[in-house]
Amino acid sequence: MDSYLGNIKECRFIHSLASGAKITDPSVVKGIGDDTAVVRGPGNKYWLFTVDMLAESVHFKKGEDLKKVGYKAMAVSVSDIASMGGLPRYALVSAGFPRQGFQEKARRLMSGLRQCASRYGISIIGGDTNRSDKLVVDVFLAGEVEQRRLVLRGGGRKGDVLFVTGRLGGSQSGRHLCFQPRVRQARFLTAHFKVRAMIDLSDGLALDASRLAEACRLGVILFEEKIPLHPDAAGLKSALTDGEDYELLFALSSKDAGRLNAAASSQRPPLRFIPVGVLTDQFRGVRLQRRDGVVRGLPGPSFSHF
Amino acid sequence: MDSYLGNIKECRFIHSLASGAKITDPSVVKGIGDDTAVVRGPGNKYWLFTVDMLAESVHFKKGEDLKKVGYKAMAVSVSDIASMGGLPRYALVSAGFPRQGFQEKARRLMSGLRQCASRYGISIIGGDTNRSDKLVVDVFLAGEVEQRRLVLRGGGRKGDVLFVTGRLGGSQSGRHLCFQPRVRQARFLTAHFKVRAMIDLSDGLALDASRLAEACRLGVILFEEKIPLHPDAAGLKSALTDGEDYELLFALSSKDAGRLNAAASSQRPPLRFIPVGVLTDQFRGVRLQRRDGVVRGLPGPSFSHF
Repeated sequence: MDSYLGNIKECRFIHSLASGAKITDPSVVKGIGDDTAVVRGPGNKYWLFTVDMLAESVHFKKGEDLKKVGYKAMAVSVSDIASMGGLPRYALVSAGFPRQGFQEKARRLMSGLRQCASRYGISIIGGDTNRSDKLVVDVFLAGEVEQRRLVLRGGGRKGDVLFVTGRLGGSQSGRHLCFQPRVRQARFLTAHFKVRAMIDLSDGLALDASRLAEACRLGVILFEEKIPLHPDAAGLKSALTDGEDYELLFALSSKDAGRLNAAASSQRPPLRFIPVGVLTDQFRGVRLQRRDGVVRGLPGPSFSHF
Repeated sequence: MDSYLGNIKECRFIHSLASGAKITDPSVVKGIGDDTAVVRGPGNKYWLFTVDMLAESVHFKKGEDLKKVGYKAMAVSVSDIASMGGLPRYALVSAGFPRQGFQEKARRLMSGLRQCASRYGISIIGGDTNRSDKLVVDVFLAGEVEQRRLVLRGGGRKGDVLFVTGRLGGSQSGRHLCFQPRVRQARFLTAHFKVRAMIDLSDGLALDASRLAEACRLGVILFEEKIPLHPDAAGLKSALTDGEDYELLFALSSKDAGRLNAAASSQRPPLRFIPVGVLTDQFRGVRLQRRDGVVRGLPGPSFSHF
């Protein structure tokens, strides 16, 4: 269940991959380093490509209901597309199954994959299957976004307000398998506001905020009193570091921030966004302002246990 | 090393996947059931999407040089794109690594992936990494093809001549790790001829010819005397069933067939295609005409050992 560490390691591998393969193709708008890759598409649109692999014992327990695993496998990629402001369109699914109980396992997994695909308007158009000692499922998802609605990680400016789309922490008690990717929220935001930076919270607010800040070449102050704790969260630390919340974290200018929730509350059903911090040029990394006013640093993604 | 059986099983799983998820999106030209999925793209082009997963102990031996594994992981997907008449463009790579020796393994694998990507003009634009007891690598590849050059499996007509792009059999002695996907051949063919049906030979001529025939709702007669044996092949059976040749099998009208090799030989360097059979409406499935004139049936993809 240590996707937190798993993802830190991923960063390093993916960066090594990125550094070795200089992309010269001018149709690639964004390669490795954001929630999805971005490629020029038809007309005024971009294609968004992302892939997420879930493995037994790492992202889900042996014996877990595979329908839930299938749902999650699709949903984590949908969340990546949402964090770019886009809509998911086409999925291809690779899966490796243990020999024992293959048929039933495949059926349950597919049922969950389809449930999520159906909910978000995705066509499953291909796949590959293999044997594997432990179950592994890998979802490739292609989405699209209007060029003017594309949101990268790195466009935030000092003084921008950071919001999240929901309560954080304790997702491992069950939510991490059945969360709802915030596509509707992302589409509302990019339709009505200039969203300057956005990322989905896969590894916890502390780490993902540091990634967003790093991409913006700025620092982040989070306000303890503002951070919305989920009822499942064990406390503030849980909300900061548990991971797998799959809420969105995004930056708006202070002017846009002031009118956000009035506009959101007029939606049917209404939406609500929670301000949790600000971007600053006074330092790099993430700091937390406690209720007593004391500001302290939070660890960033600079270590690995792989 | 039983990708033959692995792929038969794959057929069944993927068909169950296909049957359960009716695709209603009109932009999907072809979902599951060909070498790649086909989606409407910009202007007069289609997108081609494919994914192939390679797993240790199934597609390559533990201890195999991971540079070769990386090359192969990319190349099998390139071959899928070629079999549709297209050009590969963008890749995303998921990999699961055992903890031990992660860095070096990742480096070797990436080196092979990059080698193939570079050779075929592919940009590696994303990926995901995980831990896994056994190494697994999954390559998603997006390609494109001009609408008029798209080749599906099912367009062959009775009397069409079937060709292959090279010699068959015995690829497990090493070739299965370093083959050259037939992109150049496919692009030559679709530039100068109306290719009516095409498939790449991943599971052996007998099985893949039966797939092409089935898609065309026709039968195939293969001529023993024409089947080009690779020097590594142990004999005819090897050429028919070993698999992992990654040559192309395609159908041309008899008129086009007559002028194919004259046109091919004028290319620089020259190309050459080998006629191996014909499509017929006299039966379904695949039959082999032996040198002595006797015709016998070959087993099709109707069994599974999974």
